[in-house]
Amino acid sequence: MDYTFPSLLLERAVSEISKLPGIGRKTALRLALYLLRQDASQVNALADSLVRLRLDVKHCHICHNLCDTDTCEICANPLRDATMVCVVENISNVLSIEATGQYRGLYHVLGGVINPVEGVTPNLLEIQSLIERVDAGGIKEVIFALSPTMEGDTTQFFITRRLAGKKVLLTALSRGISVGDNLDYTDEATLGRALVARTIVKDT
Amino acid sequence: MDYTFPSLLLERAVSEISKLPGIGRKTALRLALYLLRQDASQVNALADSLVRLRLDVKHCHICHNLCDTDTCEICANPLRDATMVCVVENISNVLSIEATGQYRGLYHVLGGVINPVEGVTPNLLEIQSLIERVDAGGIKEVIFALSPTMEGDTTQFFITRRLAGKKVLLTALSRGISVGDNLDYTDEATLGRALVARTIVKDT
Repeated sequence: MDYTFPSLLLERAVSEISKLPGIGRKTALRLALYLLRQDASQVNALADSLVRLRLDVKHCHICHNLCDTDTCEICANPLRDATMVCVVENISNVLSIEATGQYRGLYHVLGGVINPVEGVTPNLLEIQSLIERVDAGGIKEVIFALSPTMEGDTTQFFITRRLAGKKVLLTALSRGISVGDNLDYTDEATLGRALVARTIVKDT
Repeated sequence: MDYTFPSLLLERAVSEISKLPGIGRKTALRLALYLLRQDASQVNALADSLVRLRLDVKHCHICHNLCDTDTCEICANPLRDATMVCVVENISNVLSIEATGQYRGLYHVLGGVINPVEGVTPNLLEIQSLIERVDAGGIKEVIFALSPTMEGDTTQFFITRRLAGKKVLLTALSRGISVGDNLDYTDEATLGRALVARTIVKDT
């Protein structure tokens, strides 16, 4: 529907909100009208949190994860295992892995994956800094936790080549059938790899 | 998933964004990380548009529609038919009806519908001001464009009673709109037809 807005302020707010990914003009209008009904303090808190986030948030100088200081809480935590580094594409991957509660090592956030079609070349990613972390010593294992896509595989292959000859164990997330997934709906590539990489249930 | 955020700024932004209706923490996180990748100017424009909207937007002193001045563009427009007033629940209903291009009269935004369960009593709505507009003379027809719900019907019935004995034609949107449906989600073709085929509630 093409609206003629009765207020330029409303029109501007709807236009700004609808720039957000996955939010159309109708949803943007609904959100704007919702905010109009809230206390000014709530609207100010929302606006301020966005501006502050964009201006003041920092990236850890070691792993490039988000943080409020120079070194993130994970890198600064002496209880984390500094001999393991998990290589991820972005910040939300760190959050997802942390949420599993299964990992106690450190991270390295690449800031993307190699994608020549979209102009993402290796020098735009935090790959050189990863090599330098490994060269600095102390890291025994690098775990690749990249998406099983063409771009993820390319990035993993590129980094593997760059780390060739260095005394470090390289591992990757196991590929297989997702927990709770139905075999009937698993694609043949996944099924094939799961079969090749089958795990022992009971030894001879 | 229960995330432990690496940054308090990020946590605060996610918490504020997820207060919006229909936006959970996962979507809020996605939006926050998206904003982090945009120019600071875009984030500032978004934040500023929300604050300005909430602080500076006005309500028309005649029809209570949103506007940037004291009188909205519709009420101030001499080409609109001032003998017809369309009674709607909220501002987005005005936008929806305007989008049909089928209506050239004025509006009256009630600011809600009577809903005793949620504590919305008639005195909280702009009903008295509607009666006064009718009493002031010049209005020949009041068109009810309320959602065909229990609350919408109650509100229409209440206003009809308040207008009893006054020389004004009362009409309502034709029930081409399915019962239980919400005006906010009615397509413009249906809405336009319903407006053209409006039915008489009480003749002059």
